[in-house]
Amino acid sequence: MAPKTPRTTTSAPAAPSGGVSRRGLLAALGSGAVGAGLVGAGVVAAEASARSSSGSSGAGGGSASVVPFHGEHQAGIATDVQANLHFAAFDVTATSRDELVSLLQDWTAAAVALTAGKEVGAGGATGGRPLAPPSDTGEAVDLHANRLTLTVGAGPSLFDDRFGLAAARPAALVDLPAFPADALVPERSDGDLCVQACADDPQVAVHAIRTLTRIAAGRAAVRWAQLGYGRAATVDPGAPTPRNLFGFKDGTANPAASDTATLDDQVWVQPSDEQGAAAWVAGGSYLVARRIRMHIETWDRTSLQEQEQVIGRTKGSGAPLGHAGEHDAFDARTLPASSHVRLAHPSMNGGAQMLRRGYNFTDGTDGLGHLDAGLFFLAYQRDVRKAFIPIQTALARQDALSEYLEHTASGVWAVFPGVPQGGYLGQQLLSV
Amino acid sequence: MAPKTPRTTTSAPAAPSGGVSRRGLLAALGSGAVGAGLVGAGVVAAEASARSSSGSSGAGGGSASVVPFHGEHQAGIATDVQANLHFAAFDVTATSRDELVSLLQDWTAAAVALTAGKEVGAGGATGGRPLAPPSDTGEAVDLHANRLTLTVGAGPSLFDDRFGLAAARPAALVDLPAFPADALVPERSDGDLCVQACADDPQVAVHAIRTLTRIAAGRAAVRWAQLGYGRAATVDPGAPTPRNLFGFKDGTANPAASDTATLDDQVWVQPSDEQGAAAWVAGGSYLVARRIRMHIETWDRTSLQEQEQVIGRTKGSGAPLGHAGEHDAFDARTLPASSHVRLAHPSMNGGAQMLRRGYNFTDGTDGLGHLDAGLFFLAYQRDVRKAFIPIQTALARQDALSEYLEHTASGVWAVFPGVPQGGYLGQQLLSV
Repeated sequence: MAPKTPRTTTSAPAAPSGGVSRRGLLAALGSGAVGAGLVGAGVVAAEASARSSSGSSGAGGGSASVVPFHGEHQAGIATDVQANLHFAAFDVTATSRDELVSLLQDWTAAAVALTAGKEVGAGGATGGRPLAPPSDTGEAVDLHANRLTLTVGAGPSLFDDRFGLAAARPAALVDLPAFPADALVPERSDGDLCVQACADDPQVAVHAIRTLTRIAAGRAAVRWAQLGYGRAATVDPGAPTPRNLFGFKDGTANPAASDTATLDDQVWVQPSDEQGAAAWVAGGSYLVARRIRMHIETWDRTSLQEQEQVIGRTKGSGAPLGHAGEHDAFDARTLPASSHVRLAHPSMNGGAQMLRRGYNFTDGTDGLGHLDAGLFFLAYQRDVRKAFIPIQTALARQDALSEYLEHTASGVWAVFPGVPQGGYLGQQLLSV
Repeated sequence: MAPKTPRTTTSAPAAPSGGVSRRGLLAALGSGAVGAGLVGAGVVAAEASARSSSGSSGAGGGSASVVPFHGEHQAGIATDVQANLHFAAFDVTATSRDELVSLLQDWTAAAVALTAGKEVGAGGATGGRPLAPPSDTGEAVDLHANRLTLTVGAGPSLFDDRFGLAAARPAALVDLPAFPADALVPERSDGDLCVQACADDPQVAVHAIRTLTRIAAGRAAVRWAQLGYGRAATVDPGAPTPRNLFGFKDGTANPAASDTATLDDQVWVQPSDEQGAAAWVAGGSYLVARRIRMHIETWDRTSLQEQEQVIGRTKGSGAPLGHAGEHDAFDARTLPASSHVRLAHPSMNGGAQMLRRGYNFTDGTDGLGHLDAGLFFLAYQRDVRKAFIPIQTALARQDALSEYLEHTASGVWAVFPGVPQGGYLGQQLLSV
């Protein structure tokens, strides 16, 4: 069973971010003013409608499985990885900075409710006025918070001339270069904003993205979205390292959430990193997402020995080749020259590390009799110029694994710093 | 926590279905004769490689979560619904009946291993010869059986002249008629064979379909596949009825697994139903699958009152309109004339019932800023001519819900009877 995480103290009453009172919002709902947009400048968690039935969704269920929303950093980065992912990238269609601010304020209020396991909006799924659309779509009623986290970032395209943010673009938020053998689909790449929803129940994650999409209507639209699965559904410290669709353990060398020194050094943007209008990003991070199609049929015809030489670890235990245990210390230079683990190792990359929280995906078929499956790679880092870009450059050139991979989508975002009580997502950027 | 289901007694040693000894198979592996096809006429569960580490995948984990494979009926029909689905339809590319038999024998042996939580093939993921491809792809190592069931059926197209099965086509295995407002995608519909994989961990279900796909190489290829989520991850009898993406409880009126009289009457094909060469189907069932895209954005703009009038139940409790409790008895004729529950009710359809085990799906976006989401409808029944076809005919004509739905894929299969010890899937059909 999942450990009992203390219920966040921030969940009731929710702090309206835009100064709209509960009474005002109810009046707006009653007037029929709330259509697809759901809310005006503020949305209030339905205080009386915390989901209360018994859990039905595995170890992540239970009303206690709440990850606090507020904090120095956004949740969903150093948070113990949840079982399921729904990731969405949005094109902002708002035409003014005020509209963008109101969108992020509304998202914040909804995120406070959703991550606390509450229905969104006054009345929730069923408690509103019968002649108005329910403020919550209802499919996550009874499913609790299930450790839901919502993590939001801004892509390079948000810093064009639409919202007066060009000067606030961090120097580290560079456009990713083209890598050899990239096969990127533009409609499935990039986006002004991204939202990573992770939870121990897929329906909770999907409900969250759907809710934010609904709230965004008229101000932002989903550009592309990706479901993922395959991480541990409990935070049991004894749980084995999850395996990717090549059958190998994936994430062995990830920094631990408790290793704050490494996180500060490698994941969180530090105040000294950016100056002036871009200083807002301190406390945030950079996310690189890559949809990596795996040619599993080809891989499956490869011998065990070759698979292990390509990865650099044994398939069973996950130990580095020549060692006995998964977590044994090793010298990357002793691994095969083109092995994935050697090339990606910090010692071969100036000490650079990324915090990876990728998910497996399976999206039907490719029309050729093969499953369209792979890894949706998500990596957080302090500076993509020092981490993802050089590491991927080396991998794309030399990695024996590349033969079995095809990067079909890509994006990079500056992930906002954490939200303080009463604040909103991106406030550090937009209040400059 | 999931109840402790007794471990099946059929799991070790697995019974080779094709008469190939373990020694013979190992020899074949060593000779390099096993490539993409993985196995010859028989595959043996790796007896020493039952997954043994501690569970990491929620309430469905644990080595005891095994649903027996053998029995009078296939598992995965009356089995308590698992949390996750991977469904695949296959085109048979084999050109002889013997090849088709060998495919189904190999699938049976693999299914015995997979549903027992074991790795497939001699050596499993890591215990084989280093210079041969592993017989198991490995991504489900450590994940246990997780209540995996594999349920296999034959579509109308299997009964053409390729395998001499035309005379064995059951009279009840009719081609589904076109319904008003169908928007079927042919490449995502039908298929000679179908496999429904259900488990309480998505990776276990995906691994199973991948494994059967791999085994089928050269004899059958995936035509289309669908992932689903959103059912209860435990068999806790107190768990609330799951909700679909319209936010309503879905499955309230489903026959219970313990209601064997109803199952015999409505779900299992009875010996009296078919004669002669088609008599093999007794003990089987008919599966109708429909991928139903839901226009959730339109639905979400509809008032609570209209939603409830369209469905015929209250959104919160799931009670029939005018009643207090979800499971209250009600007269369907008292519900709104075009409500879904009224039109689909057995009393309006000559007593016909289906056993539904549909799953929610979310497949990225539709390219227009909307989530491509809905219900993957799966319904088992004794005779589609008396159940799905008349019910769907009435719904397509009158159902107020139809306005919000689009059927994008469809298929019907005669699901094989259960497999006795030592038998194989479809043996009743193919040994005629």
